[in-house]
Amino acid sequence: MGKCRVLIVGGTGYIGKRIVKASLDQGHPTYVIQRREIGLDIDKLQTLLEFKKQGARLVQASFDDHQSLVDAVKMVDVVICTMSGVHFRSHNILLQLKLVEAIKEAGNVKRFLPSEFGMDPGRMENAMEPGRVTFDEKMEVRKAIEEANIPYTYVVANCFAGYFVGNLSQMDSLIPPTEKVRFYGDGNVKGVFMDEYDIATYAIKTIDDPRTLNKTLYVRPPGNILSQRELVEIWEKLTGKKLEKIYVSAQEFLAPIKSLDFASQVGVGHFYHIFYEGCLTNFEVKEEASKLYPEVDYKRMDEYLKLYV
Amino acid sequence: MGKCRVLIVGGTGYIGKRIVKASLDQGHPTYVIQRREIGLDIDKLQTLLEFKKQGARLVQASFDDHQSLVDAVKMVDVVICTMSGVHFRSHNILLQLKLVEAIKEAGNVKRFLPSEFGMDPGRMENAMEPGRVTFDEKMEVRKAIEEANIPYTYVVANCFAGYFVGNLSQMDSLIPPTEKVRFYGDGNVKGVFMDEYDIATYAIKTIDDPRTLNKTLYVRPPGNILSQRELVEIWEKLTGKKLEKIYVSAQEFLAPIKSLDFASQVGVGHFYHIFYEGCLTNFEVKEEASKLYPEVDYKRMDEYLKLYV
Repeated sequence: MGKCRVLIVGGTGYIGKRIVKASLDQGHPTYVIQRREIGLDIDKLQTLLEFKKQGARLVQASFDDHQSLVDAVKMVDVVICTMSGVHFRSHNILLQLKLVEAIKEAGNVKRFLPSEFGMDPGRMENAMEPGRVTFDEKMEVRKAIEEANIPYTYVVANCFAGYFVGNLSQMDSLIPPTEKVRFYGDGNVKGVFMDEYDIATYAIKTIDDPRTLNKTLYVRPPGNILSQRELVEIWEKLTGKKLEKIYVSAQEFLAPIKSLDFASQVGVGHFYHIFYEGCLTNFEVKEEASKLYPEVDYKRMDEYLKLYV
Repeated sequence: MGKCRVLIVGGTGYIGKRIVKASLDQGHPTYVIQRREIGLDIDKLQTLLEFKKQGARLVQASFDDHQSLVDAVKMVDVVICTMSGVHFRSHNILLQLKLVEAIKEAGNVKRFLPSEFGMDPGRMENAMEPGRVTFDEKMEVRKAIEEANIPYTYVVANCFAGYFVGNLSQMDSLIPPTEKVRFYGDGNVKGVFMDEYDIATYAIKTIDDPRTLNKTLYVRPPGNILSQRELVEIWEKLTGKKLEKIYVSAQEFLAPIKSLDFASQVGVGHFYHIFYEGCLTNFEVKEEASKLYPEVDYKRMDEYLKLYV
């Protein structure tokens, strides 16, 4: 009763799937864009049909058809965009400018969450090339949102566990190493690691919360502020096996960057900021998710890693 | 108790996912190959981890490491391969020859189901170029299996509903047309259309059934033998809206084939054999799934299409 209606753009993606599920789980009338461009991608289509089976409403629209976006936006109170911003998958951050235009024209949206869900681009003005493209583009979208006076919340969700925890933060794999682990520096810089579904839960919690209107919501629960060394220790405890440690200095880490492909260069830059500079934790935050929503029993990383044993 | 152990190779794929689920649902100790090659494909990894959560055992192996395949095969009684044979996704049919070698060397396998699950390649010796590659390659795998005296069942599963029913058999889309539907010829040739999970259910039913040892299992339940016209009528009844019919002669259908890309040429050939020649239904079958396993309440296409309304 009276639950706000949510439209998800990018619902078949990695974080989008979880946002759709969280929206349904929290009882919101949930609308998901079905892009005409999906063509013969049957996995995406069946993901969408599965949402429909669970109660979501599919809305056909296209980024090449402004009016279709306006019409979709008019059906709801809240828009959440989860289009991919990861270079080695696909990278569509600036496509959101079209969505901002549509939201502006529709004029009815009470909250917009653009595709963020990572580091805080507002604090990355000195980020390295070429990885800074991610932050620059997210800032361009933020600027468009704010200039259009669209009510927003930016969700800074930090490290997805699937990409950063299952592999003990090794860059070339998604599963834990069996013999040797590379430590960034001394391995003691603190990061923030989140089960992706918890990120989605917090994102949906925030959409009708006046405390986060036109603010950044930081997802940084105390139990998940961990160093890489602590992650490795959790893993070693779970498996009963010690890994050999290799310590990689910042200089060694950055040395090969020019020889890598673009997507890897972007990745190396981001890892550098997280694991050498500590950019996720070297500042205080005000609107922190686990403080605002203490009822959420977020998953700890010892629990998360059990599935990898 | 005493349920045979099943290894699935290709478990993250379109039909493979359903086979894993069906194997678990029918109580088999279920092993799934986790290929080292998945690299940074997080969707595949998380699909595998989801299987693990549901009780499957993940087995690391690689097609570049013969011994790893032999070791994996030795753990089980039955091997099911579901590697993709659809050109516009990926096409790995002949990679199975390596698996045949491993099964031969291991020597313990009581049943092998190679990646078939489509038309019967044993009846397609006169198929068109270039689409015949699919059948020729499947026959090459069959030959290797039989020469190695590996006990087998070939599952001829006919048309996956996701590719042939949701779109009323239109080739350029996965969702139903809204105005016009193209009929192949008069639209009266009979095909066979199956919910993919039912295919998986039958495939698992057959693995320890002596009646299908060294035979082809045809999945052709009477309720799902339908013409394209009948599919369209089901859809029109569900939606209450008549579609405009366009009748495409065989000549018109084949005319543009040379101008298409390879994957589309393959697709056109297959559609031609199904919808003009009637190759799925113009012969009698002996081992038919719904007769052998009448306890399976297979999904009818009126039910299937409801999700698309």
